[in-house]
Amino acid sequence: MAMARNHSYLINGGSEQAISVFDRGFAYGDGVFRTMQMRSGLPVNWPFHYQKLVADCAAIGIVCPSAELLMSDFQKLFEIDNFADETSYIPEVAKIIITRGEGERGYAPPAVTVPTRVIIKSAMPIYAELNYQQGVQLRVCETRLALQPKLAGIKHLNRLENVLARMEWREDSIFEGLLLDQAGNVIECTMSNVFARFGNRLITPDLSQCGVAGITRQRILGLGKMLGLSVSIESLTLVQLLQADEVIICNSLYGAFQVNSIDNKVWPQQELALKIRNMLADD
Amino acid sequence: MAMARNHSYLINGGSEQAISVFDRGFAYGDGVFRTMQMRSGLPVNWPFHYQKLVADCAAIGIVCPSAELLMSDFQKLFEIDNFADETSYIPEVAKIIITRGEGERGYAPPAVTVPTRVIIKSAMPIYAELNYQQGVQLRVCETRLALQPKLAGIKHLNRLENVLARMEWREDSIFEGLLLDQAGNVIECTMSNVFARFGNRLITPDLSQCGVAGITRQRILGLGKMLGLSVSIESLTLVQLLQADEVIICNSLYGAFQVNSIDNKVWPQQELALKIRNMLADD
Repeated sequence: MAMARNHSYLINGGSEQAISVFDRGFAYGDGVFRTMQMRSGLPVNWPFHYQKLVADCAAIGIVCPSAELLMSDFQKLFEIDNFADETSYIPEVAKIIITRGEGERGYAPPAVTVPTRVIIKSAMPIYAELNYQQGVQLRVCETRLALQPKLAGIKHLNRLENVLARMEWREDSIFEGLLLDQAGNVIECTMSNVFARFGNRLITPDLSQCGVAGITRQRILGLGKMLGLSVSIESLTLVQLLQADEVIICNSLYGAFQVNSIDNKVWPQQELALKIRNMLADD
Repeated sequence: MAMARNHSYLINGGSEQAISVFDRGFAYGDGVFRTMQMRSGLPVNWPFHYQKLVADCAAIGIVCPSAELLMSDFQKLFEIDNFADETSYIPEVAKIIITRGEGERGYAPPAVTVPTRVIIKSAMPIYAELNYQQGVQLRVCETRLALQPKLAGIKHLNRLENVLARMEWREDSIFEGLLLDQAGNVIECTMSNVFARFGNRLITPDLSQCGVAGITRQRILGLGKMLGLSVSIESLTLVQLLQADEVIICNSLYGAFQVNSIDNKVWPQQELALKIRNMLADD
Protein backbone atom coordinates (compact mmCIF):
# COMPACT_ATOMS: atom_id res chain seq x y z
CA MET A 1 0.00 0.00 0.00
CA ALA A 2 2.88 2.36 0.72
CA MET A 3 4.14 1.72 -2.78
CA ALA A 4 0.80 2.47 -4.32
CA ARG A 5 0.65 5.84 -2.56
CA ASN A 6 3.39 7.10 -4.85
CA HIS A 7 1.25 6.40 -7.88
CA SER A 8 -1.45 8.68 -9.13
CA TYR A 9 -3.18 5.78 -10.81
CA LEU A 10 -3.71 2.06 -10.55
CA ILE A 11 -4.21 -0.31 -13.50
CA ASN A 12 -5.84 -3.66 -12.73
CA GLY A 13 -5.08 -3.29 -9.05
CA GLY A 14 -1.45 -2.42 -9.68
CA SER A 15 -0.46 -5.34 -11.88
CA GLU A 16 0.32 -3.07 -14.85
CA GLN A 17 2.11 0.26 -15.14
CA ALA A 18 0.57 1.45 -18.42
CA ILE A 19 -2.07 0.62 -21.02
CA SER A 20 -1.43 -1.96 -23.70
CA VAL A 21 -1.57 -0.69 -27.30
CA PHE A 22 -3.92 -3.65 -27.82
CA ASP A 23 -6.42 -2.39 -25.25
CA ARG A 24 -9.76 -1.85 -26.95
CA GLY A 25 -10.28 1.26 -24.87
CA PHE A 26 -7.34 2.78 -26.75
CA ALA A 27 -8.17 1.26 -30.14
CA TYR A 28 -11.89 2.02 -30.26
CA GLY A 29 -12.93 3.88 -27.11
CA ASP A 30 -14.50 0.54 -26.19
CA GLY A 31 -15.24 1.23 -22.54
CA VAL A 32 -16.90 3.51 -20.00
CA PHE A 33 -15.82 5.84 -17.20
CA ARG A 34 -16.93 7.77 -14.16
CA THR A 35 -15.59 10.73 -12.22
CA MET A 36 -16.33 11.15 -8.51
CA GLN A 37 -15.33 13.01 -5.38
CA MET A 38 -13.28 11.19 -2.78
CA ARG A 39 -13.55 12.22 0.87
CA SER A 40 -11.22 10.73 3.45
CA GLY A 41 -10.26 8.13 0.86
CA LEU A 42 -13.82 7.00 0.14
CA PRO A 43 -15.93 7.66 -2.97
CA VAL A 44 -18.84 10.03 -2.37
CA ASN A 45 -22.23 8.66 -3.49
CA TRP A 46 -20.63 5.35 -4.35
CA PRO A 47 -23.90 3.36 -4.64
CA PHE A 48 -25.09 5.74 -7.39
CA HIS A 49 -21.74 5.64 -9.17
CA TYR A 50 -21.33 1.89 -9.01
CA GLN A 51 -24.89 1.21 -10.14
CA LYS A 52 -24.37 3.52 -13.13
CA LEU A 53 -20.97 1.97 -13.90
CA VAL A 54 -22.53 -1.51 -13.97
CA ALA A 55 -25.41 -0.30 -16.16
CA ASP A 56 -23.11 1.50 -18.61
CA CYS A 57 -20.82 -1.53 -18.87
CA ALA A 58 -23.82 -3.80 -19.46
CA ALA A 59 -25.15 -1.51 -22.19
CA ILE A 60 -22.09 -2.26 -24.32
CA GLY A 61 -21.67 -5.86 -23.18
CA ILE A 62 -18.89 -5.51 -20.61
CA VAL A 63 -19.11 -7.32 -17.27
CA CYS A 64 -18.19 -4.67 -14.69
CA PRO A 65 -15.57 -5.61 -12.08
CA SER A 66 -17.05 -6.17 -8.63
CA ALA A 67 -17.51 -3.33 -6.14
CA GLU A 68 -15.19 -5.22 -3.77
CA LEU A 69 -12.39 -5.15 -6.35
CA LEU A 70 -12.86 -1.43 -7.00
CA MET A 71 -13.00 -0.72 -3.25
CA SER A 72 -9.74 -2.56 -2.80
CA ASP A 73 -8.28 -0.38 -5.58
CA PHE A 74 -9.49 2.76 -3.81
CA GLN A 75 -7.84 1.59 -0.59
CA LYS A 76 -4.54 1.05 -2.39
CA LEU A 77 -4.60 4.40 -4.16
CA PHE A 78 -6.19 6.72 -1.60
CA GLU A 79 -5.24 7.33 1.97
CA ILE A 80 -8.18 6.27 4.07
CA ASP A 81 -8.38 8.29 7.22
CA ASN A 82 -11.33 7.20 9.30
CA PHE A 83 -10.58 9.75 11.96
CA ALA A 84 -10.53 12.80 9.72
CA ASP A 85 -13.06 15.33 10.89
CA GLU A 86 -15.27 17.12 8.40
CA THR A 87 -13.10 20.22 8.29
CA SER A 88 -9.69 18.63 7.86
CA TYR A 89 -10.07 16.50 4.77
CA ILE A 90 -8.89 17.69 1.38
CA PRO A 91 -11.30 16.32 -1.23
CA GLU A 92 -9.76 14.45 -4.15
CA VAL A 93 -11.12 13.13 -7.43
CA ALA A 94 -11.21 9.55 -8.64
CA LYS A 95 -11.75 8.65 -12.27
CA ILE A 96 -12.63 5.03 -12.98
CA ILE A 97 -12.15 3.72 -16.51
CA ILE A 98 -13.39 0.24 -17.45
CA THR A 99 -12.57 -1.06 -20.94
CA ARG A 100 -13.45 -4.31 -22.67
CA GLY A 101 -9.79 -5.31 -22.30
CA GLU A 102 -7.24 -6.36 -24.88
CA GLY A 103 -8.04 -7.69 -28.31
CA GLU A 104 -6.62 -8.45 -31.74
CA ARG A 105 -6.98 -6.06 -34.67
CA GLY A 106 -10.62 -5.87 -35.79
CA TYR A 107 -13.90 -4.77 -34.26
CA ALA A 108 -15.07 -8.23 -33.13
CA PRO A 109 -14.16 -8.71 -29.46
CA PRO A 110 -12.26 -11.93 -28.64
CA ALA A 111 -14.40 -14.84 -27.37
CA VAL A 112 -13.01 -14.21 -23.90
CA THR A 113 -12.18 -10.71 -22.70
CA VAL A 114 -10.87 -9.53 -19.34
CA PRO A 115 -11.91 -5.93 -18.66
CA THR A 116 -9.17 -3.42 -17.94
CA ARG A 117 -9.84 -1.27 -14.88
CA VAL A 118 -8.06 1.98 -14.21
CA ILE A 119 -8.39 4.32 -11.25
CA ILE A 120 -6.79 7.74 -11.58
CA LYS A 121 -6.37 10.02 -8.58
CA SER A 122 -6.28 13.77 -9.05
CA ALA A 123 -6.75 16.93 -7.05
CA MET A 124 -10.21 18.41 -6.67
CA PRO A 125 -10.60 21.32 -9.11
CA ILE A 126 -10.75 24.69 -7.40
CA TYR A 127 -13.91 26.52 -8.38
CA ALA A 128 -13.96 30.30 -8.09
CA GLU A 129 -15.91 31.61 -5.11
CA LEU A 130 -17.86 33.76 -7.61
CA ASN A 131 -19.25 30.59 -9.21
CA TYR A 132 -20.89 29.70 -5.93
CA GLN A 133 -22.07 33.22 -5.18
CA GLN A 134 -23.11 34.55 -8.57
CA GLY A 135 -23.35 31.52 -10.81
CA VAL A 136 -21.57 30.64 -14.04
CA GLN A 137 -21.49 31.77 -17.63
CA LEU A 138 -22.37 29.40 -20.52
CA ARG A 139 -21.95 29.60 -24.26
CA VAL A 140 -23.92 27.66 -26.86
CA CYS A 141 -21.57 25.27 -28.69
CA GLU A 142 -21.57 25.05 -32.45
CA THR A 143 -20.84 21.31 -32.17
CA ARG A 144 -24.14 19.42 -32.07
CA LEU A 145 -24.65 15.98 -30.54
CA ALA A 146 -25.50 13.12 -32.90
CA LEU A 147 -28.58 11.01 -32.15
CA GLN A 148 -27.59 7.48 -31.18
CA PRO A 149 -30.16 5.71 -28.97
CA LYS A 150 -27.85 2.68 -28.55
CA LEU A 151 -25.26 4.82 -26.76
CA ALA A 152 -27.41 7.63 -25.33
CA GLY A 153 -27.08 8.20 -21.59
CA ILE A 154 -23.93 6.07 -21.33
CA LYS A 155 -20.70 7.65 -20.13
CA HIS A 156 -18.60 5.78 -22.70
CA LEU A 157 -15.10 6.55 -23.97
CA ASN A 158 -16.23 7.87 -27.40
CA ARG A 159 -16.05 11.51 -26.40
CA LEU A 160 -14.80 13.32 -29.50
CA GLU A 161 -17.98 15.41 -29.60
CA ASN A 162 -17.25 16.71 -26.10
CA VAL A 163 -13.61 17.36 -27.04
CA LEU A 164 -14.56 19.31 -30.18
CA ALA A 165 -17.19 21.26 -28.24
CA ARG A 166 -14.72 22.10 -25.46
CA MET A 167 -12.15 23.24 -28.03
CA GLU A 168 -14.56 25.94 -29.21
CA TRP A 169 -13.61 28.38 -26.44
CA ARG A 170 -10.57 29.31 -24.37
CA GLU A 171 -11.92 32.20 -22.29
CA ASP A 172 -11.67 31.47 -18.57
CA SER A 173 -14.82 33.52 -18.06
CA ILE A 174 -16.90 30.80 -19.74
CA PHE A 175 -17.50 27.92 -17.36
CA GLU A 176 -19.35 25.51 -19.66
CA GLY A 177 -20.59 24.94 -23.20
CA LEU A 178 -24.23 24.12 -23.85
CA LEU A 179 -24.73 21.22 -26.24
CA LEU A 180 -27.75 20.91 -28.49
CA ASP A 181 -28.63 17.86 -30.56
CA GLN A 182 -28.77 17.93 -34.36
CA ALA A 183 -32.47 18.90 -34.12
CA GLY A 184 -31.75 21.92 -31.88
CA ASN A 185 -32.92 20.44 -28.57
CA VAL A 186 -30.96 21.32 -25.44
CA ILE A 187 -29.25 18.15 -24.13
CA GLU A 188 -26.47 18.93 -21.63
CA CYS A 189 -23.15 20.72 -21.22
CA THR A 190 -19.74 19.24 -22.03
CA MET A 191 -19.24 17.93 -18.47
CA SER A 192 -22.57 18.79 -16.80
CA ASN A 193 -26.29 18.11 -16.94
CA VAL A 194 -28.84 20.90 -17.17
CA PHE A 195 -32.05 21.76 -15.31
CA ALA A 196 -34.46 24.61 -16.09
CA ARG A 197 -37.14 25.96 -13.76
CA PHE A 198 -40.39 27.32 -15.16
CA GLY A 199 -42.53 28.50 -12.24
CA ASN A 200 -42.84 25.46 -9.96
CA ARG A 201 -41.78 23.00 -12.67
CA LEU A 202 -38.16 21.84 -12.86
CA ILE A 203 -37.26 20.21 -16.18
CA THR A 204 -34.17 18.33 -17.36
CA PRO A 205 -33.74 17.32 -21.01
CA ASP A 206 -34.64 13.89 -22.32
CA LEU A 207 -31.42 11.89 -22.91
CA SER A 208 -32.90 8.93 -24.79
CA GLN A 209 -31.19 9.93 -28.07
CA CYS A 210 -27.89 11.42 -26.91
CA GLY A 211 -26.10 12.89 -23.92
CA VAL A 212 -24.75 11.47 -20.67
CA ALA A 213 -27.18 10.79 -17.82
CA GLY A 214 -25.10 11.76 -14.79
CA ILE A 215 -25.80 10.62 -11.25
CA THR A 216 -26.17 14.17 -9.92
CA ARG A 217 -28.97 14.69 -12.45
CA GLN A 218 -30.46 11.42 -11.21
CA ARG A 219 -30.23 12.59 -7.59
CA ILE A 220 -31.80 15.99 -8.37
CA LEU A 221 -34.68 14.20 -10.11
CA GLY A 222 -35.44 12.73 -6.69
CA LEU A 223 -35.41 16.03 -4.82
CA GLY A 224 -38.72 17.38 -6.16
CA LYS A 225 -40.69 17.03 -2.94
CA MET A 226 -37.96 18.60 -0.80
CA LEU A 227 -37.69 21.47 -3.26
CA GLY A 228 -41.44 21.93 -3.55
CA LEU A 229 -41.15 21.57 -7.32
CA SER A 230 -42.53 19.11 -9.83
CA VAL A 231 -39.46 17.62 -11.50
CA SER A 232 -39.64 15.91 -14.89
CA ILE A 233 -37.71 14.81 -17.97
CA GLU A 234 -38.85 16.59 -21.12
CA SER A 235 -37.66 17.80 -24.49
CA LEU A 236 -36.44 21.36 -24.33
CA THR A 237 -35.48 23.66 -27.21
CA LEU A 238 -32.89 26.41 -26.84
CA VAL A 239 -35.63 29.02 -27.25
CA GLN A 240 -37.56 27.42 -24.38
CA LEU A 241 -34.46 27.20 -22.18
CA LEU A 242 -33.77 30.91 -22.65
CA GLN A 243 -37.28 31.62 -21.32
CA ALA A 244 -36.72 29.64 -18.11
CA ASP A 245 -37.01 31.47 -14.79
CA GLU A 246 -33.82 29.83 -13.60
CA VAL A 247 -31.21 27.50 -15.16
CA ILE A 248 -28.96 25.16 -13.17
CA ILE A 249 -26.09 22.92 -14.22
CA CYS A 250 -24.79 20.03 -12.16
CA ASN A 251 -22.14 17.33 -11.90
CA SER A 252 -20.52 15.11 -9.28
CA LEU A 253 -17.67 17.48 -8.52
CA TYR A 254 -19.19 20.94 -8.06
CA GLY A 255 -22.72 19.81 -7.25
CA ALA A 256 -24.91 22.51 -8.76
CA PHE A 257 -24.32 26.03 -10.07
CA GLN A 258 -26.79 28.64 -11.17
CA VAL A 259 -26.35 29.73 -14.79
CA ASN A 260 -26.16 33.52 -14.79
CA SER A 261 -25.86 33.87 -18.56
CA ILE A 262 -26.03 31.97 -21.84
CA ASP A 263 -24.45 34.09 -24.57
CA ASN A 264 -26.46 37.36 -24.37
CA LYS A 265 -29.25 36.15 -22.10
CA VAL A 266 -28.73 37.08 -18.44
CA TRP A 267 -30.50 35.78 -15.32
CA PRO A 268 -30.59 37.52 -11.92
CA GLN A 269 -29.15 35.75 -8.91
CA GLN A 270 -31.60 33.29 -7.32
CA GLU A 271 -31.69 30.62 -4.65
CA LEU A 272 -32.34 27.26 -6.32
CA ALA A 273 -28.73 26.27 -7.09
CA LEU A 274 -27.64 26.91 -3.49
CA LYS A 275 -30.64 24.96 -2.16
CA ILE A 276 -29.88 22.02 -4.43
CA ARG A 277 -26.18 22.15 -3.65
CA ASN A 278 -26.93 21.99 0.08
CA MET A 279 -29.39 19.13 -0.35
CA LEU A 280 -26.88 17.18 -2.47
CA ALA A 281 -24.20 17.71 0.16
CA ASP A 282 -26.47 16.63 3.05
CA ASP A 283 -27.86 13.62 1.23
CA MET B 1 16.77 -2.00 -35.24
CA ALA B 2 17.38 -5.56 -34.16
CA MET B 3 15.71 -4.76 -30.88
CA ALA B 4 12.67 -3.31 -32.56
CA ARG B 5 12.22 -6.44 -34.66
CA ASN B 6 11.20 -8.34 -31.55
CA HIS B 7 8.35 -5.94 -31.02
CA SER B 8 5.06 -6.10 -32.82
CA TYR B 9 4.53 -2.40 -32.24
CA LEU B 10 6.36 0.86 -31.87
CA ILE B 11 5.22 3.80 -29.74
CA ASN B 12 6.73 7.21 -30.54
CA GLY B 13 9.55 5.57 -32.46
CA GLY B 14 10.33 3.15 -29.67
CA SER B 15 10.70 5.58 -26.80
CA GLU B 16 7.74 4.07 -24.90
CA GLN B 17 6.67 0.51 -24.28
CA ALA B 18 3.00 1.14 -23.56
CA ILE B 19 0.32 3.82 -23.59
CA SER B 20 0.00 6.30 -20.74
CA VAL B 21 -3.32 6.23 -18.84
CA PHE B 22 -3.29 9.98 -19.46
CA ASP B 23 -3.23 9.58 -23.25
CA ARG B 24 -6.30 11.28 -24.69
CA GLY B 25 -6.63 8.46 -27.20
CA PHE B 26 -7.38 6.20 -24.25
CA ALA B 27 -9.44 8.71 -22.27
CA TYR B 28 -11.67 10.03 -25.07
CA GLY B 29 -10.84 8.24 -28.32
CA ASP B 30 -9.19 11.55 -29.20
CA GLY B 31 -7.25 10.44 -32.27
CA VAL B 32 -7.35 8.78 -35.68
CA PHE B 33 -6.01 5.61 -37.29
CA ARG B 34 -5.31 3.83 -40.55
CA THR B 35 -4.80 0.22 -41.58
CA MET B 36 -2.67 -0.68 -44.60
CA GLN B 37 -0.89 -3.51 -46.35
CA MET B 38 2.87 -3.71 -46.08
CA ARG B 39 4.87 -5.35 -48.88
CA SER B 40 8.57 -5.92 -48.50
CA GLY B 41 8.48 -3.66 -45.49
CA LEU B 42 6.86 -0.72 -47.30
CA PRO B 43 3.30 0.61 -46.99
CA VAL B 44 1.17 -0.01 -50.07
CA ASN B 45 -0.52 3.13 -51.45
CA TRP B 46 1.29 5.23 -48.91
CA PRO B 47 0.56 8.62 -50.58
CA PHE B 48 -3.19 7.97 -50.28
CA HIS B 49 -2.87 6.78 -46.69
CA TYR B 50 -0.64 9.61 -45.56
CA GLN B 51 -2.77 12.28 -47.22
CA LYS B 52 -5.87 10.86 -45.50
CA LEU B 53 -4.05 10.60 -42.15
CA VAL B 54 -3.05 14.27 -42.36
CA ALA B 55 -6.59 15.30 -43.33
CA ASP B 56 -8.20 13.25 -40.55
CA CYS B 57 -5.77 14.65 -37.96
CA ALA B 58 -6.45 18.19 -39.18
CA ALA B 59 -10.21 17.66 -38.97
CA ILE B 60 -9.95 17.25 -35.20
CA GLY B 61 -7.10 19.72 -34.72
CA ILE B 62 -4.11 17.36 -34.45
CA VAL B 63 -0.87 18.13 -36.30
CA CYS B 64 0.06 14.84 -37.97
CA PRO B 65 3.65 13.62 -37.52
CA SER B 66 5.75 13.97 -40.67
CA ALA B 67 5.87 11.27 -43.33
CA GLU B 68 9.63 11.00 -42.68
CA LEU B 69 9.04 10.17 -39.03
CA LEU B 70 6.46 7.51 -39.88
CA MET B 71 8.73 6.06 -42.58
CA SER B 72 11.51 5.79 -40.05
CA ASP B 73 9.08 3.95 -37.75
CA PHE B 74 8.19 1.55 -40.58
CA GLN B 75 11.88 0.87 -41.14
CA LYS B 76 12.39 0.06 -37.47
CA LEU B 77 9.38 -2.22 -37.21
CA PHE B 78 9.31 -3.96 -40.59
CA GLU B 79 12.04 -5.82 -42.36
CA ILE B 80 12.74 -3.94 -45.55
CA ASP B 81 13.93 -6.28 -48.26
CA ASN B 82 14.63 -4.37 -51.44
CA PHE B 83 15.62 -7.51 -53.27
CA ALA B 84 12.47 -9.49 -52.55
CA ASP B 85 10.85 -10.58 -55.77
CA GLU B 86 7.10 -10.30 -56.22
CA THR B 87 6.41 -13.93 -55.36
CA SER B 88 8.48 -14.28 -52.22
CA TYR B 89 7.11 -11.58 -49.97
CA ILE B 90 4.62 -12.32 -47.24
CA PRO B 91 2.30 -9.32 -46.94
CA GLU B 92 1.86 -7.86 -43.48
CA VAL B 93 -0.48 -5.25 -42.02
CA ALA B 94 0.43 -1.94 -40.40
CA LYS B 95 -1.98 -0.02 -38.25
CA ILE B 96 -1.06 3.59 -37.49
CA ILE B 97 -2.71 5.31 -34.55
CA ILE B 98 -2.20 9.04 -33.95
CA THR B 99 -3.67 10.56 -30.79
CA ARG B 100 -3.67 14.12 -29.50
CA GLY B 101 -1.19 12.98 -26.84
CA GLU B 102 -1.32 13.17 -23.07
CA GLY B 103 -3.50 15.53 -21.10
CA GLU B 104 -4.92 16.29 -17.69
CA ARG B 105 -8.43 15.26 -16.66
CA GLY B 106 -11.03 17.25 -18.62
CA TYR B 107 -12.01 17.63 -22.25
CA ALA B 108 -9.98 20.78 -22.94
CA PRO B 109 -6.65 19.80 -24.52
CA PRO B 110 -3.55 21.27 -22.87
CA ALA B 111 -2.14 24.43 -24.48
CA VAL B 112 0.71 22.34 -25.89
CA THR B 113 0.17 18.72 -26.94
CA VAL B 114 2.60 16.25 -28.46
CA PRO B 115 0.77 13.66 -30.57
CA THR B 116 1.28 10.01 -29.67
CA ARG B 117 2.10 7.83 -32.68
CA VAL B 118 1.74 4.07 -32.64
CA ILE B 119 2.52 1.56 -35.38
CA ILE B 120 1.28 -1.98 -34.86
CA LYS B 121 2.49 -4.83 -37.07
CA SER B 122 0.27 -7.83 -37.63
CA ALA B 123 -0.11 -10.70 -40.06
CA MET B 124 -2.19 -10.24 -43.18
CA PRO B 125 -5.64 -11.81 -42.62
CA ILE B 126 -6.19 -14.96 -44.67
CA TYR B 127 -9.32 -14.58 -46.78
CA ALA B 128 -11.08 -17.74 -47.95
CA GLU B 129 -10.49 -18.60 -51.61
CA LEU B 130 -14.29 -18.71 -51.95
CA ASN B 131 -14.48 -15.00 -51.13
CA TYR B 132 -12.42 -14.26 -54.21
CA GLN B 133 -14.25 -16.75 -56.45
CA GLN B 134 -17.85 -16.44 -55.31
CA GLY B 135 -18.03 -13.25 -53.28
CA VAL B 136 -19.09 -12.63 -49.72
CA GLN B 137 -22.22 -12.69 -47.62
CA LEU B 138 -23.51 -9.58 -45.81
CA ARG B 139 -26.09 -9.01 -43.14
CA VAL B 140 -27.91 -5.77 -42.38
CA CYS B 141 -26.92 -4.54 -38.92
CA GLU B 142 -29.52 -3.41 -36.45
CA THR B 143 -27.06 -0.78 -35.16
CA ARG B 144 -27.56 2.43 -37.13
CA LEU B 145 -24.95 5.13 -37.62
CA ALA B 146 -25.59 8.50 -36.00
CA LEU B 147 -25.40 11.63 -38.17
CA GLN B 148 -22.44 13.79 -37.19
CA PRO B 149 -21.14 15.99 -40.03
CA LYS B 150 -18.22 17.20 -37.87
CA LEU B 151 -16.80 13.66 -37.69
CA ALA B 152 -18.20 12.10 -40.87
CA GLY B 153 -15.64 10.52 -43.18
CA ILE B 154 -12.90 10.60 -40.54
CA LYS B 155 -11.32 7.35 -39.37
CA HIS B 156 -11.24 8.46 -35.74
CA LEU B 157 -10.92 6.36 -32.60
CA ASN B 158 -14.58 6.71 -31.54
CA ARG B 159 -15.65 3.39 -32.96
CA LEU B 160 -18.24 2.04 -30.52
CA GLU B 161 -20.86 1.95 -33.28
CA ASN B 162 -18.65 -0.37 -35.32
CA VAL B 163 -17.97 -2.51 -32.26
CA LEU B 164 -21.68 -2.85 -31.40
CA ALA B 165 -22.51 -3.61 -35.05
CA ARG B 166 -19.77 -6.26 -35.29
CA MET B 167 -21.01 -7.85 -32.05
CA GLU B 168 -24.37 -8.54 -33.70
CA TRP B 169 -23.18 -11.74 -35.41
CA ARG B 170 -20.75 -14.58 -34.77
CA GLU B 171 -21.34 -16.80 -37.81
CA ASP B 172 -18.17 -17.23 -39.86
CA SER B 173 -20.31 -17.44 -42.99
CA ILE B 174 -21.11 -13.73 -42.72
CA PHE B 175 -18.19 -11.64 -43.94
CA GLU B 176 -19.48 -8.17 -43.22
CA GLY B 177 -22.33 -6.17 -41.67
CA LEU B 178 -24.06 -3.45 -43.67
CA LEU B 179 -24.55 -0.20 -41.77
CA LEU B 180 -27.43 2.16 -42.43
CA ASP B 181 -27.79 5.62 -40.95
CA GLN B 182 -30.62 6.60 -38.63
CA ALA B 183 -32.68 7.62 -41.69
CA GLY B 184 -32.26 4.23 -43.39
CA ASN B 185 -29.65 5.19 -45.98
CA VAL B 186 -26.92 2.69 -46.81
CA ILE B 187 -23.57 4.09 -45.61
CA GLU B 188 -20.86 1.41 -45.42
CA CYS B 189 -19.94 -1.87 -43.73
CA THR B 190 -18.17 -2.20 -40.37
CA MET B 191 -14.69 -2.26 -41.98
CA SER B 192 -15.48 -1.69 -45.68
CA ASN B 193 -16.97 0.81 -48.09
CA VAL B 194 -19.75 -0.12 -50.49
CA PHE B 195 -20.35 0.34 -54.24
CA ALA B 196 -23.50 -0.58 -56.18
CA ARG B 197 -23.74 -0.91 -59.97
CA PHE B 198 -26.97 0.00 -61.74
CA GLY B 199 -26.42 -0.64 -65.47
CA ASN B 200 -23.38 1.46 -66.36
CA ARG B 201 -23.62 3.62 -63.26
CA LEU B 202 -21.47 2.78 -60.23
CA ILE B 203 -22.61 4.50 -57.04
CA THR B 204 -21.05 4.77 -53.58
CA PRO B 205 -22.97 6.29 -50.66
CA ASP B 206 -22.59 9.90 -49.62
CA LEU B 207 -20.50 10.05 -46.41
CA SER B 208 -21.02 13.70 -45.52
CA GLN B 209 -23.13 12.85 -42.43
CA CYS B 210 -21.51 9.62 -41.15
CA GLY B 211 -19.26 6.74 -42.15
CA VAL B 212 -15.55 6.42 -42.91
CA ALA B 213 -14.28 7.50 -46.33
CA GLY B 214 -11.63 4.88 -47.03
CA ILE B 215 -8.79 5.28 -49.51
CA THR B 216 -9.82 2.21 -51.53
CA ARG B 217 -13.22 3.86 -52.06
CA GLN B 218 -11.37 6.99 -53.12
CA ARG B 219 -9.24 5.00 -55.58
CA ILE B 220 -12.26 3.22 -57.06
CA LEU B 221 -13.95 6.61 -57.55
CA GLY B 222 -11.08 7.35 -59.96
CA LEU B 223 -11.41 4.12 -61.96
CA GLY B 224 -14.60 5.06 -63.83
CA LYS B 225 -13.00 5.55 -67.24
CA MET B 226 -10.99 2.33 -67.04
CA LEU B 227 -14.12 0.44 -65.99
CA GLY B 228 -16.31 2.06 -68.63
CA LEU B 229 -18.71 3.15 -65.90
CA SER B 230 -19.91 6.51 -64.65
CA VAL B 231 -18.92 6.58 -60.98
CA SER B 232 -20.58 8.94 -58.52
CA ILE B 233 -21.35 9.62 -54.86
CA GLU B 234 -25.07 9.52 -54.11
CA SER B 235 -27.58 8.77 -51.38
CA LEU B 236 -28.72 5.17 -51.49
CA THR B 237 -31.50 3.53 -49.52
CA LEU B 238 -31.45 -0.15 -48.59
CA VAL B 239 -34.36 -0.80 -50.96
CA GLN B 240 -32.37 0.79 -53.79
CA LEU B 241 -29.23 -1.16 -52.92
CA LEU B 242 -31.11 -4.44 -53.04
CA GLN B 243 -32.17 -3.58 -56.62
CA ALA B 244 -28.58 -3.05 -57.79
CA ASP B 245 -27.22 -5.23 -60.58
CA GLU B 246 -24.07 -5.82 -58.62
CA VAL B 247 -22.78 -4.84 -55.16
CA ILE B 248 -19.10 -4.56 -54.23
CA ILE B 249 -17.37 -3.92 -50.92
CA CYS B 250 -13.79 -2.73 -50.56
CA ASN B 251 -10.99 -1.93 -48.15
CA SER B 252 -7.22 -1.60 -48.11
CA LEU B 253 -6.54 -5.21 -47.14
CA TYR B 254 -8.67 -7.38 -49.42
CA GLY B 255 -9.16 -4.84 -52.20
CA ALA B 256 -12.67 -5.59 -53.50
CA PHE B 257 -15.15 -8.45 -53.09
CA GLN B 258 -18.44 -9.03 -54.82
CA VAL B 259 -21.39 -9.24 -52.45
CA ASN B 260 -23.24 -12.46 -53.27
CA SER B 261 -26.00 -11.96 -50.71
CA ILE B 262 -27.48 -9.48 -48.24
CA ASP B 263 -29.79 -11.34 -45.86
CA ASN B 264 -32.26 -13.06 -48.27
CA LYS B 265 -31.31 -11.20 -51.44
CA VAL B 266 -28.87 -13.16 -53.66
CA TRP B 267 -26.79 -11.97 -56.62
CA PRO B 268 -25.28 -14.19 -59.34
CA GLN B 269 -21.52 -14.25 -59.79
CA GLN B 270 -20.26 -11.39 -61.95
CA GLU B 271 -17.00 -9.81 -63.06
CA LEU B 272 -16.80 -6.29 -61.62
CA ALA B 273 -15.18 -7.13 -58.28
CA LEU B 274 -12.39 -9.12 -59.96
CA LYS B 275 -11.83 -6.32 -62.49
CA ILE B 276 -11.61 -3.71 -59.74
CA ARG B 277 -9.39 -5.93 -57.61
CA ASN B 278 -6.97 -6.33 -60.49
CA MET B 279 -6.96 -2.61 -61.27
CA LEU B 280 -6.33 -1.78 -57.62
CA ALA B 281 -3.46 -4.25 -57.50
CA ASP B 282 -1.86 -2.91 -60.71
CA ASP B 283 -2.27 0.72 -59.79
